[in-house]
Amino acid sequence: MRIITISREFGSGGRELGKRLADQLNYRYYDREIITAIARESDLDSNYVENALEKPAWQLPTLTFRQSFATPVLFQDTQVDLLTTQRKVLQRIAAKREDCVIVGRNADVILRAYHPLSIFVCADMEAKLIRCRERAPQDENLTDKQMIKKIKEIDKNRAKVREMLTDEKWGDRRAYDLIVNTSGWKIKELTPAIADFATRWFGRT
Amino acid sequence: MRIITISREFGSGGRELGKRLADQLNYRYYDREIITAIARESDLDSNYVENALEKPAWQLPTLTFRQSFATPVLFQDTQVDLLTTQRKVLQRIAAKREDCVIVGRNADVILRAYHPLSIFVCADMEAKLIRCRERAPQDENLTDKQMIKKIKEIDKNRAKVREMLTDEKWGDRRAYDLIVNTSGWKIKELTPAIADFATRWFGRT
Repeated sequence: MRIITISREFGSGGRELGKRLADQLNYRYYDREIITAIARESDLDSNYVENALEKPAWQLPTLTFRQSFATPVLFQDTQVDLLTTQRKVLQRIAAKREDCVIVGRNADVILRAYHPLSIFVCADMEAKLIRCRERAPQDENLTDKQMIKKIKEIDKNRAKVREMLTDEKWGDRRAYDLIVNTSGWKIKELTPAIADFATRWFGRT
Repeated sequence: MRIITISREFGSGGRELGKRLADQLNYRYYDREIITAIARESDLDSNYVENALEKPAWQLPTLTFRQSFATPVLFQDTQVDLLTTQRKVLQRIAAKREDCVIVGRNADVILRAYHPLSIFVCADMEAKLIRCRERAPQDENLTDKQMIKKIKEIDKNRAKVREMLTDEKWGDRRAYDLIVNTSGWKIKELTPAIADFATRWFGRT
């Protein structure tokens, strides 16, 4: 079984690369499905789950849909539970023994025993800004400055969540097999290069 | 003209990758030739030049072959001169307008205007240790601990020298187009994957 994990900076095109890689290599693709599975098992709303897993505990919003007057301690408990459930969901995916691409969720750390090819996707801020603009909801009216702030915050949170699970730093070269900067690439054109790399990586003697 | 620059951790196989890439792509290869050219132009010994360009000023040995009682200030002057000559030598290489691979020398920073494909090569310490053992001179009898110390020191110096030239950090993902971890690879098998990536990178639309 071959697992490719993709960690990525917000706006770098990592998700698109993951999808296209899975298509080209004929692997299963996991991304939102993981959130949905965790939400189902935890009996929580999937937006809440996604939010909780992308942010350090102290930034979590109140768990209003349960109408609880939850304390910060309770939030943290929920988050720990979610991280545990996430681990189980990822282990279950790996146990299927099907070739797959998993985007996000620190799958490279959690599934390390399966020796995934772990890829980190980054891009220059200018390129990320353009990508975010293209994908922004119609009603989002952020200035460039606000957008840059948003991008940086999301990445900072991803880094913090990762550091709950491992000593390795998010985005540090020592933690990945390949880091690719997508600036100047069309993801569609980049995909065969990475697919080729992956095929050779799994075929190493 | 296509320029591939290779920066690398000591012992990661970056030089071998550079050589093989140049062979496979039929590019010119530059590495020690640059040191030799700088030494010739500066009327200095090439070992001294190499040493001076790999170390921050305060670590330089006395310039004994000139029989001078050089002060640290003089050393620094020499180093600045060498960096200037290095810049000229690299510019001259680029001016030839031949496809080439350049290993080390911060060529990615100095030749930025030529839009090189800048690759950083790293590896896990265990893999670097094995590689260094294989390549060590017969008379080198370092313990693992001493070898690890040596590897770390060389990389630390490379990082410091780079930071004389640019705000970007040595080995930081934001400073390169591709970072590859060679652990578990035979460089010979890795080469076609990187050559393929390079060909696609230069062919981006």
